[in-house]
Amino acid sequence: MTAPDGLPRHAEAQQFPTLDDVLQIGGILLTRLAERVGRTPFYAYERRHIASRVGLLRQVLPRGVQLHYAVKANPMPALVQLMAGLVDGFDVASGGELKVALDAGMAAERISFAGPGKRDAELRCAVAAGALLHLESESEMERLARIGSELGMTPRVAVRVNPDFELKLAGMKMGGGARPFGVDAARVPAMLRRLAQLELDFHGFHLFCGAQNLSAAALCEAQRLSVELALRLADQARVPMRMLNIGGGFGVPYFPGERALALDAVADGLAQSLDLLRRGSPDTELILELGRYLVAEGGIYVCRVLERKRSHGQTFLITDGGLHHHLAASGNFGQVIRKNYPVAIGNRMQGAALETVSVVGPLCTPLDLLADRMELPRAEVGDLVVVFQSGAYGLTASPTAFLSHPLPLEVLV
Amino acid sequence: MTAPDGLPRHAEAQQFPTLDDVLQIGGILLTRLAERVGRTPFYAYERRHIASRVGLLRQVLPRGVQLHYAVKANPMPALVQLMAGLVDGFDVASGGELKVALDAGMAAERISFAGPGKRDAELRCAVAAGALLHLESESEMERLARIGSELGMTPRVAVRVNPDFELKLAGMKMGGGARPFGVDAARVPAMLRRLAQLELDFHGFHLFCGAQNLSAAALCEAQRLSVELALRLADQARVPMRMLNIGGGFGVPYFPGERALALDAVADGLAQSLDLLRRGSPDTELILELGRYLVAEGGIYVCRVLERKRSHGQTFLITDGGLHHHLAASGNFGQVIRKNYPVAIGNRMQGAALETVSVVGPLCTPLDLLADRMELPRAEVGDLVVVFQSGAYGLTASPTAFLSHPLPLEVLV
Repeated sequence: MTAPDGLPRHAEAQQFPTLDDVLQIGGILLTRLAERVGRTPFYAYERRHIASRVGLLRQVLPRGVQLHYAVKANPMPALVQLMAGLVDGFDVASGGELKVALDAGMAAERISFAGPGKRDAELRCAVAAGALLHLESESEMERLARIGSELGMTPRVAVRVNPDFELKLAGMKMGGGARPFGVDAARVPAMLRRLAQLELDFHGFHLFCGAQNLSAAALCEAQRLSVELALRLADQARVPMRMLNIGGGFGVPYFPGERALALDAVADGLAQSLDLLRRGSPDTELILELGRYLVAEGGIYVCRVLERKRSHGQTFLITDGGLHHHLAASGNFGQVIRKNYPVAIGNRMQGAALETVSVVGPLCTPLDLLADRMELPRAEVGDLVVVFQSGAYGLTASPTAFLSHPLPLEVLV
Repeated sequence: MTAPDGLPRHAEAQQFPTLDDVLQIGGILLTRLAERVGRTPFYAYERRHIASRVGLLRQVLPRGVQLHYAVKANPMPALVQLMAGLVDGFDVASGGELKVALDAGMAAERISFAGPGKRDAELRCAVAAGALLHLESESEMERLARIGSELGMTPRVAVRVNPDFELKLAGMKMGGGARPFGVDAARVPAMLRRLAQLELDFHGFHLFCGAQNLSAAALCEAQRLSVELALRLADQARVPMRMLNIGGGFGVPYFPGERALALDAVADGLAQSLDLLRRGSPDTELILELGRYLVAEGGIYVCRVLERKRSHGQTFLITDGGLHHHLAASGNFGQVIRKNYPVAIGNRMQGAALETVSVVGPLCTPLDLLADRMELPRAEVGDLVVVFQSGAYGLTASPTAFLSHPLPLEVLV
């Protein structure tokens, strides 16, 4: 993780092999894939990597844990379609994602819909579809009961709980303290009493503490605390808890010095949490909801070098891709201190000589930076720059209309 | 600028009047406009404000300064069309913006195209259209000459110079030191000698030092230094300089404690710089290129309160709008420390009672924050939240596909 110079390094990206100094994805040489796609920039996601990631989880995680895919991580229809055949259910965060999930053939009863600001129109769609709605507030519960009554249907619901603990070391904390997500744990018993008076079909709880966590110990602790809290709430409220969604939060290494999550340790902890749940509530289904962890490492962003440029002693590779396609890699999406994503020259994976370069995009803004003074094989005009770890929160998390450039393509290979 | 409690306050937004406690834009009550638009969220831009801002500049700035609009600030076609009748030219940053500019009826010879990574296809379009190309590197110059020869046309060009000074206090520095923008000043004379050997029609220089500057003194100094550098370069190279684009960089107040730019002081400084230019090069046209300053304050973003929510003693207004439509207001676009944009309740401009609330969007992420613990009139479900200063770098600078919500509409009123 550290180089001879003592500086932290990126975790090695080993998921894609190299042939004749050219990266391969989906068994295709990147140079050939670029021709097949027909233009740069593009995103490429690999079926094999995604399937093997799900397979690994099935193998390592305790039997009986249900695996859901959080569509928000990457809603590309072909990828969601692939995922529909691999996981046990989907979580969606909008009416738009619900449509993608249903179009992919996922059964509506295996789709859950969470989100702190669901519009009435979205609630109606979800009820009509038969999806499970994660209630984020008492007033949403009342709105939903009214909509169910209008449609002559009994909405299926779970209660999203704002837990009274935090996920330590999470890249993004979403529980603990004042939050717009879910219902404060202390208010849940009263809410469930009201729920029992309404024409709503209660299924269980959803707890989500945070995202992008690389600490197995912190994840295991949050999972244990989530199970304990859910058991306590179900017991106090004397309701049968058929399902418990404990979220995900599994991180992937993006930046120098970060290490991959120790999945075995997570699995051990999860087995203990599952035992705890089964002792307290034998018939409750435990759901793990993963987005980023399933798809981030299976995807790359590819752009082409338009110019090599020297300015005041520094070298810039100016590419046709940038911030407008991959905001997170530019360091402008929720990052306080900008750090480089892992970047390579896809057709010169080793290269002849190394140089220190900055990789920038075509936009007239200094924010449009894909790599800040990285050591890379010397690249020429026409070469392909690859940004790894780009399968999640890439294209859809980017301001694609910024400066009116063409949309990048996405391919699943 | 400071309240009795000593905390900095937002500059007063006085551009839109209030009638019966409801904000008006374009002479229309916001409540009625929301019905006319037909759904929330939406952006609204006011013709009157934009026209009067251009009119003010015409009145205050020294006669003879040419005023250009930087389309990137807001490329909404109807707005660009309005602007075409108000300003002297457009600056575009991509082939897509060039199309918008031409469709709006701006004469091609009054359109200039800058950008560090222009693709060959974009260069061809611009040459075919007859636009002025700002050369950002020697290799772009060579590419352009080849394309001109292929098309049997002589491309019109200016040289974008990376100045050897910085714009002090700029929100975003774009000149000085190693930059991907323009050609280092020291290399320009050699470049111009090569340019003279090519079939290219040289017009002058473009210098752009930075954006979002609220200091008149810093702007005036950068303008003076730009004129001096351009005169020196033109003299050394012994080329007639027909135009000099000194960029813009005029800031608008977004955050608590910021004050509007002192336009009179800028005008005084610009008059001196114009004198300097006329003494050194009487026939050079001086161009000021403004984007944000022309449109930011004439636009608002409007979303609707879906829920009032209490969590651990804090109040949240959950709206149907957020980060996916207005990334800058969420604090996630190039800002190191998040600060609140000016926000109001558009149908309760004074309101009955004040409360401290956070305004959030519908997305499942803590980044989706439009106002963090602001004092606002107490709002109810259905009320309209207004984000001011939203006419520039709003919709197109936002990740609209994030979580697959519908696109917001834009109206020019």
